[in-house]
Amino acid sequence: MRYSIGIDLGGTNIAVGIVDEQFQLVDTLSVPTQANRPWKQVVADMARCVHTLLANNALDPSSCIGLGAGVPGVIYSSAGTVLFSNNLRWEHVPLGHALAVATGFPVRLSNDANCAALGEVVAGAAKGRKNVVLLTLGTGVGGGVIIDGKIYEGTQGAGAELGHCTLIMDGLPCTCGRKGCIEVYASATALVRQAGEAVASHPDSILAGKALNGRSIFDAMHRGDPTATHVVEQYKHYLDETAVNMVNIFRPEVLLIGGGISGEGQPLVDRLNAYVRKNCYAAPYAFVTTVKIAALGNKAGIVGAAALCLA
Amino acid sequence: MRYSIGIDLGGTNIAVGIVDEQFQLVDTLSVPTQANRPWKQVVADMARCVHTLLANNALDPSSCIGLGAGVPGVIYSSAGTVLFSNNLRWEHVPLGHALAVATGFPVRLSNDANCAALGEVVAGAAKGRKNVVLLTLGTGVGGGVIIDGKIYEGTQGAGAELGHCTLIMDGLPCTCGRKGCIEVYASATALVRQAGEAVASHPDSILAGKALNGRSIFDAMHRGDPTATHVVEQYKHYLDETAVNMVNIFRPEVLLIGGGISGEGQPLVDRLNAYVRKNCYAAPYAFVTTVKIAALGNKAGIVGAAALCLA
Repeated sequence: MRYSIGIDLGGTNIAVGIVDEQFQLVDTLSVPTQANRPWKQVVADMARCVHTLLANNALDPSSCIGLGAGVPGVIYSSAGTVLFSNNLRWEHVPLGHALAVATGFPVRLSNDANCAALGEVVAGAAKGRKNVVLLTLGTGVGGGVIIDGKIYEGTQGAGAELGHCTLIMDGLPCTCGRKGCIEVYASATALVRQAGEAVASHPDSILAGKALNGRSIFDAMHRGDPTATHVVEQYKHYLDETAVNMVNIFRPEVLLIGGGISGEGQPLVDRLNAYVRKNCYAAPYAFVTTVKIAALGNKAGIVGAAALCLA
Repeated sequence: MRYSIGIDLGGTNIAVGIVDEQFQLVDTLSVPTQANRPWKQVVADMARCVHTLLANNALDPSSCIGLGAGVPGVIYSSAGTVLFSNNLRWEHVPLGHALAVATGFPVRLSNDANCAALGEVVAGAAKGRKNVVLLTLGTGVGGGVIIDGKIYEGTQGAGAELGHCTLIMDGLPCTCGRKGCIEVYASATALVRQAGEAVASHPDSILAGKALNGRSIFDAMHRGDPTATHVVEQYKHYLDETAVNMVNIFRPEVLLIGGGISGEGQPLVDRLNAYVRKNCYAAPYAFVTTVKIAALGNKAGIVGAAALCLA
């Protein structure tokens, strides 16, 4: 059996995994990123994790064919460079070269959402599909695009920024500098902001004084709280329209929903499928994309990163 | 020298051309589509045009390797089927088979905007580029997407409907059934509607009583008419935001602007390039797409359709 190493480098944690040729996760290890350090220290910790994980599993480095890493931001994969990462505050970091030197493995990089999409295609909810789009609804809205079985990352890795397409032109300000991006309305962060505003003007809500997060807001909705219900309905409308946009642009076989919000599961997907089937372009005549919840959760990024070397 | 035949099938005209291996247009012929006829009569006229054009150029059918046709609508190219065409009012028409029988040539189909994009890639403003997006700003807003040198059409040809992505969620109604699509704000039709509304409330405009079209509206703006200037500025803002969305989604090497509005030329492109460079995701760090005017005009569709067989 041959293996590949996958790293999901996040703003909070470095998650490392060993993945076998059947794309099964053998073992994982996670350490804090401490992203405020110089990047070379982060790379040193990434390499240390790789060696520890191999030793823990009594695997000789020669049984591993390579190392893939998924990184949040604009990743120029063929140059091995992180051009820009908002989460890590990195600019023009030669991560591919540094990791290769530190570990001795051939290294491939891609954007973290792209890796998660690839992970779902090789071993998750879109297994075996060739054209797939993943939206991760979390702190932000990430996009991963698989075309013809391969990651589509745009010129020098700067495409597939699906969260930074306007949903409402000239709308609310986005961290990217524009206004009205999907991310400002459809991220988990946006849902929390929307709920916070609603609770402020409806202090009778059962959410008043509670910690607001995707879970608590959806729970309050399920318990019939009118304020939460109104917020979630509006939020779902943003998701509905975002989903139809992605279907009209890419018409993938499968549109995957990942990230924290995807914990809402089947009811969310049932609604999205009904909306897409009714509203996508030429719906009565043309192929209609199926919306599904991503299956691998926070393991998708590791599996997909490892798959960069196994594909 | 070998040749290929390209057909640009529109709601108004059937335009047929002979294209050589260097993607040069040898000769063309055009007849009215008369789209309200049964589709088999349209196919018969397409075949007649092909034979006439070959005879006019003293070309033996054996020197032609195939026939490509670009058709407005959702084209399931591998099945040779027009699933849906709004312009032609066709549903599930087996055009590929019918054309092959009527002409004796192997036939390949694609969407008309996709063919125009391919035409620009093989012989026009994006010659030699691998990742290109074309927006045609005309009666509607068409989208053509070239990825890795090939047309990206989505599952069963139903993707790349770039004009049917929302620019303003819950905005003005679109012919596709949704609200707020790019097409409702950024097509030439939209510009005419916007100017009509503005002139109605500003009867002092030099556009009052004039025939409104892209040309006359831009002319009035260039002559300093305040009403036209206001309308065109707002229209350009829709285009600016649309362009940045396309760049963030695809980050193509080149974003081409075609259709009637592209007649405005260099000033339009200069503005779009400045806006994209300032507003696209991670602009200071990442590759920035160049916006260009499509070069082949209404010949792009013929050349691209022929290129379906030459590539």
